[in-house]
Amino acid sequence: MQTLEKEKPVQSKRNRLVIVCSKGSLDMAYPPLMLATTAAAMGMEVHLYFTFWGMNMITKKTIDSLKISPVGNPAPPMPNILGMIPGMSSMVTSMMTKKMQKMKMPSIREMIATAKESGVKFHACSPSLNMMGLTKDDLVPEVDDIIGATTYHDLASEDAITLFV
Amino acid sequence: MQTLEKEKPVQSKRNRLVIVCSKGSLDMAYPPLMLATTAAAMGMEVHLYFTFWGMNMITKKTIDSLKISPVGNPAPPMPNILGMIPGMSSMVTSMMTKKMQKMKMPSIREMIATAKESGVKFHACSPSLNMMGLTKDDLVPEVDDIIGATTYHDLASEDAITLFV
Amino acid sequence: MQTLEKEKPVQSKRNRLVIVCSKGSLDMAYPPLMLATTAAAMGMEVHLYFTFWGMNMITKKTIDSLKISPVGNPAPPMPNILGMIPGMSSMVTSMMTKKMQKMKMPSIREMIATAKESGVKFHACSPSLNMMGLTKDDLVPEVDDIIGATTYHDLASEDAITLFV
Repeated sequence: MQTLEKEKPVQSKRNRLVIVCSKGSLDMAYPPLMLATTAAAMGMEVHLYFTFWGMNMITKKTIDSLKISPVGNPAPPMPNILGMIPGMSSMVTSMMTKKMQKMKMPSIREMIATAKESGVKFHACSPSLNMMGLTKDDLVPEVDDIIGATTYHDLASEDAITLFV
Repeated sequence: MQTLEKEKPVQSKRNRLVIVCSKGSLDMAYPPLMLATTAAAMGMEVHLYFTFWGMNMITKKTIDSLKISPVGNPAPPMPNILGMIPGMSSMVTSMMTKKMQKMKMPSIREMIATAKESGVKFHACSPSLNMMGLTKDDLVPEVDDIIGATTYHDLASEDAITLFV
Repeated sequence: MQTLEKEKPVQSKRNRLVIVCSKGSLDMAYPPLMLATTAAAMGMEVHLYFTFWGMNMITKKTIDSLKISPVGNPAPPMPNILGMIPGMSSMVTSMMTKKMQKMKMPSIREMIATAKESGVKFHACSPSLNMMGLTKDDLVPEVDDIIGATTYHDLASEDAITLFV
């Protein structure tokens, strides 16, 4: 007698990660890069789509000077007023940067290089580029291409983990 | 001899986009509307769920006066201290608005009208409405309905691209 | 005659919700907890992954003192300058808290307890814990475990609704 085994439906794991990077602050630059690099190391296909303030993460002029806003993040144990003292944002940023160096955390420039080596794809948003008056030459060499929202949706719709940072 | 071709599993592309809009600043109002309108133009089914500060995007009183926070966005080339000067946020907003007008970028009110015409659905969050002391009459006419998180999850769970802005 | 009915593809609804909680402000602490509790009540499997400022939502010392940033949220009808007056953030927070109490909205501590009872899983991000110099003892007892981004991706890739707050 033959047993017709009902094939167990293969739980297809999603193997793609597509993150919109829309923030230009140092604290919101780390999470997408950390998630991207880890996913790439796991063998996933990873796409980062940089738009609005996120363009600062991939622009030569700004990549090394991203700052933490002590005012916009009421969570740190610091009264809002401190955010208003000139240079305070730089001071908090420098404090956090030193802490990160102690922990041997790479800089954003280094994280982008590592992500690229791991196979992460870097896409710059075309309208954002125009709005900011930038050209491809103003972007770091890791950027693969300049795409619009249509291409983003194509990437995101193929069963990907999607996040908006 | 018969060849039993193993049916190639159809890679079902996700055809739905569901975005939570939780921010009330001008710079975070554009991305969800741009993604929504593009997706609708591609034939996707698009739902926007407005909650918390995102209610300002669809409230008659606030839709035309969304502002960019120069303090909360440390990315623009501007020291935080400038955000503290009275009227500075308005000034930065007016600068960005002028730039957008030059690029012929539509206003939020215009983008909402366009999105609506493209078939994008507008859902207001019921608890947020109550918390802000608003009624449906306070909202722009493009709003389709007032829903809770249960309906949001129903929409999001049907294989949609999901984003939280 | 035999009719070979083409089996209708079962539209498998996603039954899992995985949210990255990266913000430490009161206004951005509510949305993930409200979405999580509602989803759990609907029978969904829910995971919250706390990282960066989101650690403040599950740290004993900070859970009861999350604040709204009046500066970072240009949406509320309040000029940015008010955010710079010492204690103003506390005042706005206290105003919103009173309004929430009138609406009988639970505190973050209460919402976390309720979510936990509903079956929501709480995951703290390992590198964030190190960066903030915290240990598991500094976290509220509702936290299930300390995980890295690899485990997050495993959770998120199994056909979940994914959000980054």
